[in-house]
Amino acid sequence: MTSIAFIGLGIMGLPMAKNLVQAGHDVIGFNRSRPAVDRFVEAGGRGADSVAQAVAEADLVFTMVPDSPDVEAVVSGEDGVFANARDGAVWVDFSTIRPDVSVRLAEAANAAGLRALDAPVSGGEAGAIEGALSIMIGGDEDVVEQVRPVLEAVGKTIVRVGPAGSGQTVKAANQLIVAGTIQLVAESLVFLEAYGVDTTAAIEVLAGGLAGNRILDRKAASMVKHEFEPGFRIDLHHKDLGIVTSAAREAGVVIPLGALTAQIMGAARQKGYGSLDHSALLLLVEELSGRGSDA
Amino acid sequence: MTSIAFIGLGIMGLPMAKNLVQAGHDVIGFNRSRPAVDRFVEAGGRGADSVAQAVAEADLVFTMVPDSPDVEAVVSGEDGVFANARDGAVWVDFSTIRPDVSVRLAEAANAAGLRALDAPVSGGEAGAIEGALSIMIGGDEDVVEQVRPVLEAVGKTIVRVGPAGSGQTVKAANQLIVAGTIQLVAESLVFLEAYGVDTTAAIEVLAGGLAGNRILDRKAASMVKHEFEPGFRIDLHHKDLGIVTSAAREAGVVIPLGALTAQIMGAARQKGYGSLDHSALLLLVEELSGRGSDA
Repeated sequence: MTSIAFIGLGIMGLPMAKNLVQAGHDVIGFNRSRPAVDRFVEAGGRGADSVAQAVAEADLVFTMVPDSPDVEAVVSGEDGVFANARDGAVWVDFSTIRPDVSVRLAEAANAAGLRALDAPVSGGEAGAIEGALSIMIGGDEDVVEQVRPVLEAVGKTIVRVGPAGSGQTVKAANQLIVAGTIQLVAESLVFLEAYGVDTTAAIEVLAGGLAGNRILDRKAASMVKHEFEPGFRIDLHHKDLGIVTSAAREAGVVIPLGALTAQIMGAARQKGYGSLDHSALLLLVEELSGRGSDA
Repeated sequence: MTSIAFIGLGIMGLPMAKNLVQAGHDVIGFNRSRPAVDRFVEAGGRGADSVAQAVAEADLVFTMVPDSPDVEAVVSGEDGVFANARDGAVWVDFSTIRPDVSVRLAEAANAAGLRALDAPVSGGEAGAIEGALSIMIGGDEDVVEQVRPVLEAVGKTIVRVGPAGSGQTVKAANQLIVAGTIQLVAESLVFLEAYGVDTTAAIEVLAGGLAGNRILDRKAASMVKHEFEPGFRIDLHHKDLGIVTSAAREAGVVIPLGALTAQIMGAARQKGYGSLDHSALLLLVEELSGRGSDA
């Protein structure tokens, strides 16, 4: 039994923390808004009133918050992780943030006597609930092996991809592929509907060939039904595509499809779809094609 | 045992025809260039010297040729399928061609006393060899059910998606998704390499999450090794993206990612990569990013 602090009990964090409790760990959770903490306590976890209280006795500190500034806010300052965690504790950040920020914070964690991993995840809410996330980890190999048994409660594919920050770099690529694939599926669905093809049959046969992908498997059917409850919000994916495009630009890597996808995601956000699931890119394609509800 | 004529023994057609022989059918093959016929005969098939000879006794006529004009050449004229096939024979076209041409040829087949299905496939050379293709079929349901037991020797996912031409429409969407996914994976790999990430580990973890797709599963490893033996040639995928973009345009469907992908495929062709596998889109991204062999 490992003593774990889990900070950030949102759409992803709460089911992940619950799975850690299910696996027999002592988990104390903290969230900025209290109702999430209450839900976690109902599920068998312990609740904390502050980050400081949550991390005080923990061997492992997990964070799962929306963006780079949120991670900085949680780890820094008098009430933060760095000032209050035990010496030698391991901090694992599941959040998706800028790789350069991740590297800088790992160094700050080391200076504060902690060891750090960046460990962003993929697989969505369903993957979090099923404990079947894909976890891409940057950091020292021995630390990865130390926490791997615990991570197996939340993830199915757990892979170290390189030194600190590498997890975030791979997650950036992940978000590029996911957003682009959603857009490709959206364009295809509108195209098929325009030609009167049976989209349910088409999704089945597309999924069985070289076009097969996780978006066709998990999201295409709900896209056809216009069900866009998040899931993963367009606002957050827009943030992530900002990370991808600026990281690619800094490295001199030209990503034409990634750049256009980022523009499209931004347009969907401006259109007011920010709080819908990222698969709502379909709505924009429908509107551009004169087939939308407001057409 | 069904008597089958198989016309077009190329990268896809030859292994498909062999699988039909393996399944116990009497298959007579024809190909414009003779060596492919010889290879088929070595594998236990029968060889024909002309289309007319191949189809004369067949219950089923299968065609698998590169493009719309090739299909027209094979079915039309004195030596063609329509003039020489038995009354009541079923013509199944596995080729990827324009949906409108497919509809017109199905009507001509009916007028000639044949029944017709458009049945383009996906899954690549590997899928053809394994008999595991995805087959998207347009045409009458009773004809589909009549030939389904035979198709099971070449395909795993066999789905009727609508009336004549619908198979080609779904295949167009398939080619849009495949090309776009290759480009997304290519951009991601160059991005990861620029940041010194372990690409083999990254491919594994990306494949396990929401970014998971058949290109990551089947092609990313060979892309990293710069192995671009076709497979499916850029020249042919360029032809297919011409079908997609013009069919989308005719239907008033806006496909920004599809259009950009078509431009990129065209650029790869102009660059001289037409005879390489479509995964060679990677080379273009590398060159644009100053990381190519000619950079």
